[in-house]
Amino acid sequence: MKEQDNDSKGLSRRKMLIGTGALAAGVAVTQLGGFIKPAIATGSKAQKWPWPYKKLDPAKTAEICYNEWYRVFCGAAVINSIFSQLGEKFGEPYTSFPADAFVFLEGGQVGWGTICGSPAGANIVANLIIGPRIADANEGHHMATDIMQWYSEAKLPTFMPKKRKISSTYPKTVSESPLCHISVGKWMKEANKSLKSPERKERCARVAASTAYRLVEMLNAWHDDDYESTSDFSAVREHGITGQFNCMECHTDDVPETPGA
Amino acid sequence: MKEQDNDSKGLSRRKMLIGTGALAAGVAVTQLGGFIKPAIATGSKAQKWPWPYKKLDPAKTAEICYNEWYRVFCGAAVINSIFSQLGEKFGEPYTSFPADAFVFLEGGQVGWGTICGSPAGANIVANLIIGPRIADANEGHHMATDIMQWYSEAKLPTFMPKKRKISSTYPKTVSESPLCHISVGKWMKEANKSLKSPERKERCARVAASTAYRLVEMLNAWHDDDYESTSDFSAVREHGITGQFNCMECHTDDVPETPGA
Repeated sequence: MKEQDNDSKGLSRRKMLIGTGALAAGVAVTQLGGFIKPAIATGSKAQKWPWPYKKLDPAKTAEICYNEWYRVFCGAAVINSIFSQLGEKFGEPYTSFPADAFVFLEGGQVGWGTICGSPAGANIVANLIIGPRIADANEGHHMATDIMQWYSEAKLPTFMPKKRKISSTYPKTVSESPLCHISVGKWMKEANKSLKSPERKERCARVAASTAYRLVEMLNAWHDDDYESTSDFSAVREHGITGQFNCMECHTDDVPETPGA
Repeated sequence: MKEQDNDSKGLSRRKMLIGTGALAAGVAVTQLGGFIKPAIATGSKAQKWPWPYKKLDPAKTAEICYNEWYRVFCGAAVINSIFSQLGEKFGEPYTSFPADAFVFLEGGQVGWGTICGSPAGANIVANLIIGPRIADANEGHHMATDIMQWYSEAKLPTFMPKKRKISSTYPKTVSESPLCHISVGKWMKEANKSLKSPERKERCARVAASTAYRLVEMLNAWHDDDYESTSDFSAVREHGITGQFNCMECHTDDVPETPGA
């Protein structure tokens, strides 16, 4: 099995303008798939893909996710909003998945501000249901890249729950990043609200709900054999290093050359 | 259940020097625990914590992890190196955990350069075995903060496998971050090797093995009731926003005030 490198062969693709985050039109990402080798010890049926799936209602799922955020926070809320419904329908392997353990995804993993728990949870769900690329199930990997790009480009939150914990109106923001620190920080600046404010918490609950909504749309399309990956960016392919698309947001005007290229 | 905010009450703690990453001596982080409310639907025994554990050999675990990297890459390798051994000993709930689905943690989640898969996998293992903080099991959360800080401060890789895929020697580097992009980028710069080089892959396999080694040391101490959290940094507590400790590495000399503080 080759490591993921997102090499495209003859595909047109997004051009990245370093420093602006602006992206030209383009097409899809190829992915190097393959066949799974035997696991060391855990060859359970939970490691056979895809897991059973029925189409879910995105809005109902998002409502569940919104309420779950106030119990288990972003990552576990996204997982539970989908797995609770599929567990009721199918039982295993959903009922044995310990979703509540993923509370630690909060705050970009225990408060360290890395990947926001909402896309982190969505990536888990997509890859658990569809399977990993080493099992010749590339759609899970593609769906995760789509989630990362959607999250970065969307004006969040996109979903408004019917029964809201607080009724405040506040700005929506584009993060240009899947990182919690950046997503939350840009919103806090625009809204002039602190991390501990009820509005920030409500915003994050709605962002989780928005992510669950978008993920269910993708999973439903996949279930109908109508899923096509829309992500058209790969830092590995474009720049020879893992990363996101707007280098200068952190590097300013001193973007280093990729070493050893 | 309150959201994690790492508020310390009367504890001394690390002082953060913005821009240098230098940290003065200090003590531990408090965490707001609580009691778990019922899950929506998936109340399986896999959601009862702690999971059974026996002390593992850190070096043996690291060797397994190193070899697993070449099959499932960083995140899933860390998970499998521990769960394969515990699955052989205890069976469930380990054997039903779909570890191979976590291949997507590679490259900081499908190549986006966010959290390195090694700490991401270690955080999953710690929180699955010990449980989430909402289940009144704060050690899982603490262990994840310890992993994040250890990964950021260690000269990686710390572990050298006995049977190596390639025998090259190359530099060890301190990432000052749990992010894949930064960890891999600093190593690539120091080693002057590309992402696709065998040396970079070997380095990442050894980093995963190093992380598994360190995690097993922590889990063994926890099993002996001798685990004490060593992490002494919280961006939430220090700065009112999720994040890491070296603000100026990205913000340079323009570190914004925390909004709404």
